[in-house]
Amino acid sequence: MVEFIDGGVTTPEGFKATGVHSGVKYRSLDLGLLTSEVPASAFAGFTSNKIKAAPVQVMMQENSPTLSAVVVNSGNANALTGRRGIEDALTMKQTVANELNLDPVQVGVMSTGLIGRFMDMHKIKYGINRAVKDLSVGRKADNLIAEAIMTTDTIKKECAARVRLSDGTMVYIGAISKGSGMISPHMKVLHGTTLSLVTTDAKLSPKFAKVWQEILDDSMNMVSVDGDQSTNDTCLLLANGMAKGACADDDPLFREALQAVMNKIARTIAKDGEGATKLIEVQVNNAKTKEDARRVVKEVIDSPLVKSAIFGSDPNYGRIMMALGNSGADFNLEEVRLVIKGGEMEVPILEAGAPIFQEERSVEAVRMAMDNKEVAIILDLAVGNESAIGWGCDLTYDYVRINAEYST
Amino acid sequence: MVEFIDGGVTTPEGFKATGVHSGVKYRSLDLGLLTSEVPASAFAGFTSNKIKAAPVQVMMQENSPTLSAVVVNSGNANALTGRRGIEDALTMKQTVANELNLDPVQVGVMSTGLIGRFMDMHKIKYGINRAVKDLSVGRKADNLIAEAIMTTDTIKKECAARVRLSDGTMVYIGAISKGSGMISPHMKVLHGTTLSLVTTDAKLSPKFAKVWQEILDDSMNMVSVDGDQSTNDTCLLLANGMAKGACADDDPLFREALQAVMNKIARTIAKDGEGATKLIEVQVNNAKTKEDARRVVKEVIDSPLVKSAIFGSDPNYGRIMMALGNSGADFNLEEVRLVIKGGEMEVPILEAGAPIFQEERSVEAVRMAMDNKEVAIILDLAVGNESAIGWGCDLTYDYVRINAEYST
Repeated sequence: MVEFIDGGVTTPEGFKATGVHSGVKYRSLDLGLLTSEVPASAFAGFTSNKIKAAPVQVMMQENSPTLSAVVVNSGNANALTGRRGIEDALTMKQTVANELNLDPVQVGVMSTGLIGRFMDMHKIKYGINRAVKDLSVGRKADNLIAEAIMTTDTIKKECAARVRLSDGTMVYIGAISKGSGMISPHMKVLHGTTLSLVTTDAKLSPKFAKVWQEILDDSMNMVSVDGDQSTNDTCLLLANGMAKGACADDDPLFREALQAVMNKIARTIAKDGEGATKLIEVQVNNAKTKEDARRVVKEVIDSPLVKSAIFGSDPNYGRIMMALGNSGADFNLEEVRLVIKGGEMEVPILEAGAPIFQEERSVEAVRMAMDNKEVAIILDLAVGNESAIGWGCDLTYDYVRINAEYST
Repeated sequence: MVEFIDGGVTTPEGFKATGVHSGVKYRSLDLGLLTSEVPASAFAGFTSNKIKAAPVQVMMQENSPTLSAVVVNSGNANALTGRRGIEDALTMKQTVANELNLDPVQVGVMSTGLIGRFMDMHKIKYGINRAVKDLSVGRKADNLIAEAIMTTDTIKKECAARVRLSDGTMVYIGAISKGSGMISPHMKVLHGTTLSLVTTDAKLSPKFAKVWQEILDDSMNMVSVDGDQSTNDTCLLLANGMAKGACADDDPLFREALQAVMNKIARTIAKDGEGATKLIEVQVNNAKTKEDARRVVKEVIDSPLVKSAIFGSDPNYGRIMMALGNSGADFNLEEVRLVIKGGEMEVPILEAGAPIFQEERSVEAVRMAMDNKEVAIILDLAVGNESAIGWGCDLTYDYVRINAEYST
């Protein structure tokens, strides 16, 4: 039984964290540090954008199986910064290693913020110096690091859960994430600008990497705010084994708990999409292949026309079908079923390839369903038995405003 | 020498046209009719969306090599309308055929407007009755049909040109098009919701279809307003040979003229994208393959982050590189060159994988270049010698407003 609890990244045993103001940003916290008392098994997922930020390049090259610390800054993505960027990322690692008496290979690094500007290393070093002195456990520490990694985020993405494993061990999972725009991760384990830090005191072996990829594919990789995949996406799971139980690699209870935590984080990211007023959940059922199901989810959730219709509660469901047709997936139009859900309303729309109703009064039901903070689009493709779920948000005036003035 | 002239679809010899108000729309013209005195060789490009509107299905199935008339309505797309939709499209053809004494297979049909509502055939038939009596030539007729096919368009898309062919014959080309949203055509000849009607009095044989596909691939298929491909896109070329010259299939002068007309129409569609304040031209040079060059153009032009940055003249060029990295195309980051052009400004941005400048003063130059009605993004991938050009527009508050209230 997975139990969600009030907690964050320092909830699992042995993890400390903090967030400080280094000066990269004008006022807010902009540098976070996370440490584990003992080296933690590290599982990473990185952006599959061909242009990768310097910290991503460095982490992928070192591919360290364990990490004892992770330093994260916001305000500057250290992306498109050439060789100097790589040196700066290495210096961030080295500075933390020096302060904490670690091998630099034991230090992870992540950045998020503006692309194409060099880092101000003077400020970053100052920040790291402050952060190491400030490391702590508890809800205050959790909040500091969660705040330090935020950019255009309006709500903190944090989640914690505990679960009693098959061998009786109680393990804890804590997760934070940032991400509001340039979000459409397709993270590949070892080879997603959502930055996520997930901690657990469960024990995991390197072969858990495959499960981690599957969990990411069903959670973080099914979120899309704008279809634009960042140069910096990174999702890092640290498992330090300090709960002292058996290896949890194959424990379905652990997997269920981690999937539940990651799904909750994924939904929160979609809900806090730049300028979003509504969370859109797209569920595709009875697709021929899993790949097809995911493609339809992505095509619907990325469509600016669907997104703006939902913003305006405009019952223009034809756009959902337009997106289905563009996905390339197989479906049987004569039997496709489309349902729109919101609040108490659940409105079936299609029958035999044509809308069920034509009258203005019944179209009104669609409008009422759409006029909710959470709107679900459910498509039954009627050609197989694979399904997928993904999350996105509406396209609003504020999305345009935020992104027309980001760097200013 | 291609010469652009003031003209429209009735400028080439033997074509007549009109536009009337049938009542499908509340007030504006909503039904257009085009005829050719003699059967014209017909070359069509249709949407590759798997969900095709009824008129598209009918046209694709009949695949008539010649057409004598085309009826077009706006206000209702006759898409997602099942069997009744097919019957309605056939009835539109039959009604025109009866009035004009034609075989119905000689009548083309196109629809655009709201998806998922049945046609009011009473109004459509009334409209056709009025239109056949009103057929005419000249600028007034050109304007009537151009207006009748518009939906959210704010400017009429019309273009005409003449060219003296190699054999001395002077031929005329006239084109009209509609399209403002749900625009990202990938039209396949015989197998793009832009509706376009192109007329010419040149003589063409069926084998010109291949050239027509190539011309569409470099023009209409390189326009993207929102990355959403319609269920109704159709681009129809009618060549009635009434200029009396030799077959123009292989005449480079004819091809050049037709390409010039289609490029001009394509740019006008991008410029009039829903809510657009700026035309964005993306040019990709030295790609490894033509396919790669086109993919990069599409990825940049479809990125909501790039589009909203240009709306705000926000010099956030990192987003262009983010889109390049997501395209899947090959490039050599160390040698990639990025130039942003607008008005008199031409600003080189990248060198050796990093921005050339870092200071606020020079970033200001990028802002100034972006602060123009037409902004060009030029990317040199440095890995081959293939190139492509495409057109799009900025993402604005008005795009959101238009699409949040379309069906209301």
